[in-house]
Amino acid sequence: MQIAMIQDRMIPFNELEPAYLDRGLYFGDGVYEVLRSYNGRPFALDEHLDRFANSLTAIGIEGVDLARIRARVLQAFDASGLAHAKVYFHVTRGCGSRDFLGKGPQVPTFFLTVTELGDSSSEKARGIRVSTYPDLRWKRCDIKSLNLLPNVLARRDAAHKGCDEAILVNESGLITEGAASSFFAVFGRPTGAEGRKGYHLQTAPLTANILPSVTRLFLIRAGRNLGIPVLEEQFTPEQAAEAEELIMAVTTKDIVPIVQFDGHLIGDGTPGPITRRLAAEFSKATEVRGARA
Amino acid sequence: MQIAMIQDRMIPFNELEPAYLDRGLYFGDGVYEVLRSYNGRPFALDEHLDRFANSLTAIGIEGVDLARIRARVLQAFDASGLAHAKVYFHVTRGCGSRDFLGKGPQVPTFFLTVTELGDSSSEKARGIRVSTYPDLRWKRCDIKSLNLLPNVLARRDAAHKGCDEAILVNESGLITEGAASSFFAVFGRPTGAEGRKGYHLQTAPLTANILPSVTRLFLIRAGRNLGIPVLEEQFTPEQAAEAEELIMAVTTKDIVPIVQFDGHLIGDGTPGPITRRLAAEFSKATEVRGARA
Repeated sequence: MQIAMIQDRMIPFNELEPAYLDRGLYFGDGVYEVLRSYNGRPFALDEHLDRFANSLTAIGIEGVDLARIRARVLQAFDASGLAHAKVYFHVTRGCGSRDFLGKGPQVPTFFLTVTELGDSSSEKARGIRVSTYPDLRWKRCDIKSLNLLPNVLARRDAAHKGCDEAILVNESGLITEGAASSFFAVFGRPTGAEGRKGYHLQTAPLTANILPSVTRLFLIRAGRNLGIPVLEEQFTPEQAAEAEELIMAVTTKDIVPIVQFDGHLIGDGTPGPITRRLAAEFSKATEVRGARA
Repeated sequence: MQIAMIQDRMIPFNELEPAYLDRGLYFGDGVYEVLRSYNGRPFALDEHLDRFANSLTAIGIEGVDLARIRARVLQAFDASGLAHAKVYFHVTRGCGSRDFLGKGPQVPTFFLTVTELGDSSSEKARGIRVSTYPDLRWKRCDIKSLNLLPNVLARRDAAHKGCDEAILVNESGLITEGAASSFFAVFGRPTGAEGRKGYHLQTAPLTANILPSVTRLFLIRAGRNLGIPVLEEQFTPEQAAEAEELIMAVTTKDIVPIVQFDGHLIGDGTPGPITRRLAAEFSKATEVRGARA
C-alpha cells in the first residue's frame, strides 16, 4: 500500500489533500503576484496581471484565463472589505504524482489570499537599514516564480545583522536588487540654479537577472515627472555606501528610505529630501489609479 | 475579513488547511530526499540522511531530529509492504503568514510518501536519449532544496525534443549534471593487454554547482572496484557527443545507459560494455546493503 506521512501522522497515500501533491510545493513550479490596495482601490492591477501573464508564458503554464484571474482578484478583494489590503495569488502547474516533467494533462492550481496590509509608516519616517548578500538566485529572475529560497536566505542574513532588507550583489560585484524589493540610489548633490543639476536616480536595468518590479516602474515615472534624470545602470556596494540617498521600492510598502547600508550612514542617517519628493509624487499615482474593473 | 481562494472557491483565511500556508509552497523553503528500496531493503539510507542533515544546516532549519526522521522513514516503508519502493520526504521551515523572513518560532513540516517504484528495465536495456539545456539553476545546487523550477523547465525541454533527460550546460560551456540525475562519460577505447588501458570514467567534480548524488558516489566506487580510472573534471557537450559511452545515474533507476546525445548516436547506439560492467558492479552494493535500523 502506498503511504503518506505528515509530521508523525501516517495515512494512505490516496487520502492526501490535493495541496500536498501540488507541483508548487514539490518544485516551486508556479508563478505569483502580490498587489495592494490604497483606500479601497487595488493599485496597478493591469500591470500586475501583465507581468503575471509573462511569467506564466515563460514557464509554459497554459490554459490560464487572465480575465478570470482578474475577476477572482476583484471578487476576493471586494469580499474582504479591507481598505489597505495585500492580495497574493499564485498559479502552479497543478497537482499530480511527483514527476519533474508533469506527465499528462494538468489543471493549474489557482490560490489567492487577501490579508490586511501591515503599517509601514514608522519605517518610512525613520528609514530602514540594509546589508549586502551574494545574489545566489537562478538566471531567470525576471520570472516571478515560487523558487524563492535564495531570497529567504538573504533576508535571514539581513535580519541576523539587524537589517530590514538584503541587497543582492552578483559575481561581478554589482548590485542587482533587493531580496524582495527594487533598489535605487540618488547620486550627486543638488546644485545650480534649478537646485537639481548634478544628481540623478539610478537603478539596475531590466535584464533576466532583475524582476520587472511594478513599484520600480512607478518610481522611475515619479522621477521623470519631477525632472530627475534616471539612469538604468548597475553600481557597486562601495558606490551605494557613498550615495546621497538610497531607496527601497516594494509593492507592499512602496517608497521606503534607506538610512544605513552595510553599517554606513547614508547622508545624515535620516530620510533625504529627494526620497521624500519621490514618495510624494509616487503617492499621486496611488490616489488617481484604481482597478478598471 | 481576510479571505482565501482555491480555484473558484472562496473561504475565510482562517479556515485554510495548514498545507496552503507552508513555506515550502510559498518559497520552496525546504529540503528533500528521495531514496529507494531493493527487494524490501532501503538502500543507502545513511548516505541520504547525512546529505539531508547537510541540506538542513545549509539553509538554517534547526530542531530537526534526524533519528526521528530515520524512524519515520523505516516505519512508513515497513507499513507500505512494498519491495521496490520510492521514499520521498521533505522538511520545510514550517507554516505561517507569508513573510520572507519567517518571523517567530516555527515548527518545521515533515512530509513523506512511499510509492511504488516504476519499472526502468526497458530503459536500461534500450538506453535513453538526452539533450542539452542551459544550467539556469541557483548557485547552491549542492543543497537538495525544493527550488526545482529550472530542473522542471530543462526536463520539459528535453521531453519536447523526444528525450528522457536534460544535460545542463553552464555559462562556460561545460556540463554540470542532469536536470534530475548525475552524468558520466566513458572516454577512450579499451586497449592493451588488460583490455582496460586508455579509457576512464569522467564526471564533474563536487562543487556548489553539483548535487552530491548518492548514486554518483556508488557509481564512482563501482568504477574503482573494477579498476577503471575515475576523473572528476568537467567536460563539454562536444566531448560528450564523442564519448565511447554515456551514463545517467539516479536513485530511482540507478545506472542507465545513454545512447543518444543531442541527436548524436553514442557508440553504436546501444548500451556499451563498460556501462554494463559498472551496472553489474553497482548492483552488488544494492544486494548487500540494507538499512541499519
